[in-house]
Amino acid sequence: MLVVMMNDATDAQIARVVDVIKEMGYEGRPMPGAQRTTVGLVGNDGRVDGSRFESLDGVAEVIHVSRPYKQVSREWRQENTLVTIAPGVVFGGSEIPIIAGPCSVESEHQIVLAAQQVRDAGGSALRGGAFKPRSSPYSFQGLGKKGLELLALARRETGLPIVTEALDDEGAHLVAEVADCIQVGARNMQNYSLLRTIGRLGKPVLLKRGMAATIVDLLLSAEYLLAEGNTQVILCERGIRSFDPSTRNLFDLTAIPLVQKLSHLPMVADPSHGTGLRDKVIPMGRAAIAAGADGLLVEMHPSPDNALSDGGQSLYPDQLARLVREARAIADAIGRSITSVPGTAPVAQG
Amino acid sequence: MLVVMMNDATDAQIARVVDVIKEMGYEGRPMPGAQRTTVGLVGNDGRVDGSRFESLDGVAEVIHVSRPYKQVSREWRQENTLVTIAPGVVFGGSEIPIIAGPCSVESEHQIVLAAQQVRDAGGSALRGGAFKPRSSPYSFQGLGKKGLELLALARRETGLPIVTEALDDEGAHLVAEVADCIQVGARNMQNYSLLRTIGRLGKPVLLKRGMAATIVDLLLSAEYLLAEGNTQVILCERGIRSFDPSTRNLFDLTAIPLVQKLSHLPMVADPSHGTGLRDKVIPMGRAAIAAGADGLLVEMHPSPDNALSDGGQSLYPDQLARLVREARAIADAIGRSITSVPGTAPVAQG
Amino acid sequence: MLVVMMNDATDAQIARVVDVIKEMGYEGRPMPGAQRTTVGLVGNDGRVDGSRFESLDGVAEVIHVSRPYKQVSREWRQENTLVTIAPGVVFGGSEIPIIAGPCSVESEHQIVLAAQQVRDAGGSALRGGAFKPRSSPYSFQGLGKKGLELLALARRETGLPIVTEALDDEGAHLVAEVADCIQVGARNMQNYSLLRTIGRLGKPVLLKRGMAATIVDLLLSAEYLLAEGNTQVILCERGIRSFDPSTRNLFDLTAIPLVQKLSHLPMVADPSHGTGLRDKVIPMGRAAIAAGADGLLVEMHPSPDNALSDGGQSLYPDQLARLVREARAIADAIGRSITSVPGTAPVAQG
Amino acid sequence: MLVVMMNDATDAQIARVVDVIKEMGYEGRPMPGAQRTTVGLVGNDGRVDGSRFESLDGVAEVIHVSRPYKQVSREWRQENTLVTIAPGVVFGGSEIPIIAGPCSVESEHQIVLAAQQVRDAGGSALRGGAFKPRSSPYSFQGLGKKGLELLALARRETGLPIVTEALDDEGAHLVAEVADCIQVGARNMQNYSLLRTIGRLGKPVLLKRGMAATIVDLLLSAEYLLAEGNTQVILCERGIRSFDPSTRNLFDLTAIPLVQKLSHLPMVADPSHGTGLRDKVIPMGRAAIAAGADGLLVEMHPSPDNALSDGGQSLYPDQLARLVREARAIADAIGRSITSVPGTAPVAQG
Repeated sequence: MLVVMMNDATDAQIARVVDVIKEMGYEGRPMPGAQRTTVGLVGNDGRVDGSRFESLDGVAEVIHVSRPYKQVSREWRQENTLVTIAPGVVFGGSEIPIIAGPCSVESEHQIVLAAQQVRDAGGSALRGGAFKPRSSPYSFQGLGKKGLELLALARRETGLPIVTEALDDEGAHLVAEVADCIQVGARNMQNYSLLRTIGRLGKPVLLKRGMAATIVDLLLSAEYLLAEGNTQVILCERGIRSFDPSTRNLFDLTAIPLVQKLSHLPMVADPSHGTGLRDKVIPMGRAAIAAGADGLLVEMHPSPDNALSDGGQSLYPDQLARLVREARAIADAIGRSITSVPGTAPVAQG
Repeated sequence: MLVVMMNDATDAQIARVVDVIKEMGYEGRPMPGAQRTTVGLVGNDGRVDGSRFESLDGVAEVIHVSRPYKQVSREWRQENTLVTIAPGVVFGGSEIPIIAGPCSVESEHQIVLAAQQVRDAGGSALRGGAFKPRSSPYSFQGLGKKGLELLALARRETGLPIVTEALDDEGAHLVAEVADCIQVGARNMQNYSLLRTIGRLGKPVLLKRGMAATIVDLLLSAEYLLAEGNTQVILCERGIRSFDPSTRNLFDLTAIPLVQKLSHLPMVADPSHGTGLRDKVIPMGRAAIAAGADGLLVEMHPSPDNALSDGGQSLYPDQLARLVREARAIADAIGRSITSVPGTAPVAQG
Repeated sequence: MLVVMMNDATDAQIARVVDVIKEMGYEGRPMPGAQRTTVGLVGNDGRVDGSRFESLDGVAEVIHVSRPYKQVSREWRQENTLVTIAPGVVFGGSEIPIIAGPCSVESEHQIVLAAQQVRDAGGSALRGGAFKPRSSPYSFQGLGKKGLELLALARRETGLPIVTEALDDEGAHLVAEVADCIQVGARNMQNYSLLRTIGRLGKPVLLKRGMAATIVDLLLSAEYLLAEGNTQVILCERGIRSFDPSTRNLFDLTAIPLVQKLSHLPMVADPSHGTGLRDKVIPMGRAAIAAGADGLLVEMHPSPDNALSDGGQSLYPDQLARLVREARAIADAIGRSITSVPGTAPVAQG
Repeated sequence: MLVVMMNDATDAQIARVVDVIKEMGYEGRPMPGAQRTTVGLVGNDGRVDGSRFESLDGVAEVIHVSRPYKQVSREWRQENTLVTIAPGVVFGGSEIPIIAGPCSVESEHQIVLAAQQVRDAGGSALRGGAFKPRSSPYSFQGLGKKGLELLALARRETGLPIVTEALDDEGAHLVAEVADCIQVGARNMQNYSLLRTIGRLGKPVLLKRGMAATIVDLLLSAEYLLAEGNTQVILCERGIRSFDPSTRNLFDLTAIPLVQKLSHLPMVADPSHGTGLRDKVIPMGRAAIAAGADGLLVEMHPSPDNALSDGGQSLYPDQLARLVREARAIADAIGRSITSVPGTAPVAQG
């Protein structure tokens, strides 16, 4: 339930609404907007009688949120949420950051070189897995804590903020110490315990859509993060399961405008996992920008043929540069722009 | 099997290859390319011994086509096939035609008005169903032959070529008399009898991907048309079945670069059926162009709220104009362009 | 809309209801039931005002059918429809016929031998394709008319009724002359033109579910047959498309009780196409009977390793005998029985 | 890689093979079989040269396991693994246990009554969630530790062993103290961190197939448990995502014989989640038994209409009794039997 205050509602009137909500056994959360404040009611399960609020001073309207999610909805917040993972690297505004890097952190040489190549190609954040969720227990599982240290080193060398995945509670705390943005992978999208832990860590989160998740499922999982008080959440389309073996996953780009209509959270796209095919990453990265994506997440490796994981879908460094160039042209065409590399002048990337 | 001739192979050498194929009980089909001629062997089922050709004069190479389809493959023909449905309306080149119009032809007033609106908005072909495949036998099934006459009238008034669907043999002959391009709908993609009939009619064909068809299934269905001697075939992504009810279908844009790599045939996209949601047609139409689509097929109705079918996914006329504008900007960004309205001056196209 | 007459309604009262429906521009179809007659209104698209009927003499109730299908629904007819394809071979009652035979008719020797083996194994009808829908135009397409003649010969030799597929209008007429039941394959489930033609041929029809068809889609396609006046329709689950390549299709056995609740038509299952794996046909055939299937359709070939199509999923003759034995045990366990071979005593099949 | 020893291989010869594997940097794990011992090599990622073993004394054969999973495979262990969760409640043998109970533990009265009803109906284990994974953070999340205590109480009252779900590391330790079998839910099937933790707890595990998991994915997840030394693993089919909204999930019964062929682990089925519809649970439970399921997992609630979760798919107590009766008839028909209630004589359940 949302209690929308009048444009000229006083602080005291807002406080009164919060108090009444508290008396009813719930929590009231005031959200100041551009013109007026809305007070959201959390802690309920959809069965609250709102009539008591309609007679309070300063209340313009009581909205019963009919959707199963709440704080992630456009009804809860009309303006786009801007998620800032580093100075100048903002998701949800008119600028579109490109996050790139290898599937896994493999060595100091590899990740520092990759970071430099990402920056040179025009990417504005570095991805790279230290903890890897692998279908087989016998596959390479990532360098773990050592991988995080190498990511921090790569950031010092290049200035690029770090996006990396956490797989469990212990790892989440380690990742939070180093990363600028904590990734929750597709396989863990409905690991609600992990979502709750990460929701409390106070870091931006990139939440990937599960392989069988509907748009509503994705928004409900994001709701777990917001319910813990973290609104710095980026959603990510990365392909879903389908019957056609032509591609690793089925890249559902319509998810971008769907999510953007239903939610105020930024929505990015991962054409590397979305297609699983290196030569499809550029056209589908362009398509994601054209569909309105608020960012791209792509795999690039200094030497894809020697990658320990996902080599077949990783771009070569010069392909990343080409993707950024083409993404920039598409962004221009729809009145947006690609985020400049942190710490360099935009001119340098022309 | 493909017998690739040397660049300087003589006509006599090519004829000899065709003769040997005939002696073996198959048909040899010479295909002159930009630099050299390739002779395709048709009529077999993949079990031909090619060693006999390797010793013939003028033969550079014998390629065994491993894929289940053959004449639709890039191995069979390296250059893009250009499909021309009217002067200046060509699919597969650098220009991208936009086909638009109502789901169904409903009346003279409606279809002529729609055609004018399509032309004014920048579309270069008119779509509109005279024969409608409907899930329920009690739903509106189209105006039939009368609908075809109205489409011909709309063409006379606007100069726009006509794309319309055929559902059966009898209808296919009727459609072929009027239409500039015969559409085979998703439900009939594996109606092989209909494909054979239409393959013999000598008209360009637009073949839509079935709701559960893989890319290979789609190419195999196209092979039925080419096997009848018709190479003027346009393929179309229009969404496949998925588990998420958020959209009518799941619009698989990766199908565009996939098909373009495997086949020489042009591939267009239908964001109206692909999403089923009016407000998603523009972003996903943009995305299709960015992914490399060779054309768009979109539903527009003069008055969507009164449409007899598919009103909810039909654009308003001014939305079509906006889609064309935005598609043009995207096309420019990737070095292509949107096809101009035929003749530019409507009178010139009569 | 359904007009339910009182138990003691007179013929004149029923005729009056039919007349009123006719005056309204629709067709009234009286359906005598065990206790009372219901008059169905056909030709409308769901927007009829039923108030006029409520005041007519003898009318007990007016039911507005809310589902998109009508004549196939349990609301339209409460009792199971029994479909008889030959004396003693009835679908929809307590007996369960087993239809078996090769994918394709290949030769006189093959089909007659197969028919004898089916009969000896306890099957009660013969399947075998004369017209084959094949993904590739270069694959074996069936013997056509010659295949139908061989099926007729096999029937004369064994007494087994024939179930065989029609692919187009011309073929449907040929099939209708020979077959006891015309099969419509999964690829043609939404070939509405073919459904209309077959609906008028006056022969029992076996309609297979399409690979991406929902239960509602299947019922709507059946409605096309009933709308032409043919109520002798058997529905068939044969697997749908899924993301798991472990099996050729995903065999959806829940479709059986779903259809049986929504419709009065019998529902059979095809575990051969449903799984695509010979060693899964027996357990899944058992499971289909346990789920309540009104029949089985299975592929058996005298020599699967030499089959021209679908050899890998065809049972060996002794495996068919085992399937029938196990199906019989399951049927007994749920109070049903497997149909005896026509013209033989049940004992002979033990 | 598997090193199969000769029937008369000595302990010293087996020890030598283990030593050689150790010298190569891996771990050798001897597995005595009915006739001969096999030594499995673990710790590798598929690239081991096995030629060295072929010349060792007592070695019969070296098998390179080509599948991505290893210890769960039939190649690794030919005999069925029997998983015993309580005396007489064994999965994987000829007896088939039925696990039943409410979705969630709601109160002492509810769970004790449910347990009595399960026992009276013929079930042999009690299910009930103390920790519930819910799509929405605002839905009832289970009673937690209190719920576990109530489950223990219900066990004391009825003698039924307990199967209940763990959602995270902390919960897994709590569940392990109380439960006889720890359930890993579909949403956590690829929560590899949780699988590792649970693999080390030394309790039987019931692992549910994820909503988009292939059979191979399921087996790979089970491999995580076995890789930690726990072989007491039961797999469970519970429905996957599909395009048809008729049912909550698509119940893939073919998964049962598929898993049983590829793996030695028992495979059970959950028709409650598999269909999501109360009236489909009985026919599909029967079908699962007929397909060869090694157990059933069903939801039953003393008062489904008042259930806090999943009421619509929960059986009434008398429906559970009917399901057990019908399952027993089906089991008899295929030469198996339904497990008797622990602590009661089989006669009492007739």
